[in-house]
Amino acid sequence: MLERAWEWIKMRDTFEKELNKLHVLFAEMGMMVNEAISHSVKAFSDHDNELAQEVILRDKKINECENELESLTLELIALYQPVTTDLRDVITVLKASSDIERIGDHAVSISRATIKMKGTRRIPEIEVEIAKMGEQACVMVEQVLDAYIKNDEEQAYQIADDDHKLDNALESIRDKCLKFMQNDPKTVVSGSHYTLVATYLERIGDYVTNVCEWVIFLKKGEIVELNKDHEEKR
Amino acid sequence: MLERAWEWIKMRDTFEKELNKLHVLFAEMGMMVNEAISHSVKAFSDHDNELAQEVILRDKKINECENELESLTLELIALYQPVTTDLRDVITVLKASSDIERIGDHAVSISRATIKMKGTRRIPEIEVEIAKMGEQACVMVEQVLDAYIKNDEEQAYQIADDDHKLDNALESIRDKCLKFMQNDPKTVVSGSHYTLVATYLERIGDYVTNVCEWVIFLKKGEIVELNKDHEEKR
Repeated sequence: MLERAWEWIKMRDTFEKELNKLHVLFAEMGMMVNEAISHSVKAFSDHDNELAQEVILRDKKINECENELESLTLELIALYQPVTTDLRDVITVLKASSDIERIGDHAVSISRATIKMKGTRRIPEIEVEIAKMGEQACVMVEQVLDAYIKNDEEQAYQIADDDHKLDNALESIRDKCLKFMQNDPKTVVSGSHYTLVATYLERIGDYVTNVCEWVIFLKKGEIVELNKDHEEKR
Repeated sequence: MLERAWEWIKMRDTFEKELNKLHVLFAEMGMMVNEAISHSVKAFSDHDNELAQEVILRDKKINECENELESLTLELIALYQPVTTDLRDVITVLKASSDIERIGDHAVSISRATIKMKGTRRIPEIEVEIAKMGEQACVMVEQVLDAYIKNDEEQAYQIADDDHKLDNALESIRDKCLKFMQNDPKTVVSGSHYTLVATYLERIGDYVTNVCEWVIFLKKGEIVELNKDHEEKR
């Protein structure tokens, strides 16, 4: 009897160590993506091709991290067969890591746009709006990682609530770009890139919202859908 | 001893029934998304606002289906603690359903663009290219569902290989749109929408590639990354 209890304690201890490794790796991936998105926005605002190139190159590490997380979660489920909150922990990382990885992909797309825009006629007014939108997206990414670490579902609801700001910003940037492009053909190339970059930033908000749903799942064990009504009206 | 064996057989039987339910639901979701993307492309080509509206409304069902799949997979893992190939089956559905759902989201985005374009000056030449690109994306979605159902990893590799066609189509459409917009301000609104729609179609190729990775995982139990080198060069 005592022997079995001892075995159980040992196994529990190993599981907790592995779970901790998973959390650390997920947090590391989150920090890398957070840096990628903030660097891509900075590179875009500063017309800094070198920094943009760096974001593109570093994305490889983010993808590797996601693969490692996937392998680790599968190993954990197969070896320890976790239930209730332990299972939730593992599943949250497995699902949310896809969303985090995709935010990284969008940082790459923004960086590619930065490089392609070199030498085109800029529209400072739009660049200011995109920089503001980029900052909002960065704050949302940072906040959702914080909510995940603190297991704070209230914060997750609030972050998802803020997503409409990015939708409105996209709408405004898109309309202004169209007017510029219609009035001055020399702004067509930059205007098209601005529209795409704003679209990428808006999508980042959607991925953050998905991660918010997983933070709520982690806390309450319920799968919720945030902002769906709002999306329908868009 | 016999009693325990009998219990195991009963449990295995229930698990297999539940797993089958999961497969059927995933296939159903796949078919819905397949229809959504082909309808959204058709609505775009035919300037059919009504069909576009239908795609937007039906997306709710796809989202509900994803939630149901998520709940069912979690229940299966918690109740039956599957290992090896059974676990792989369940995890594949859990992960690939996010990609399938996002293809549905992009069908919605294409439908929204269709509605917004009403009354703008069209560019038939570009519309032909987008229709072709849309068809390629539809074929890829259909094929990956087929590869999943047949558990055919060779097919998955081939489908992912075809993704560069969508990348090239996007590049071509983007360049042509820029030229039209620069030469005729009246094409700026439609040109912007065309560029966005082509971007959505290209992203669908990326999601299909992700599903291909899961089909390979299902067969070989290995997490692979497809098209990453190619993406870096883009």
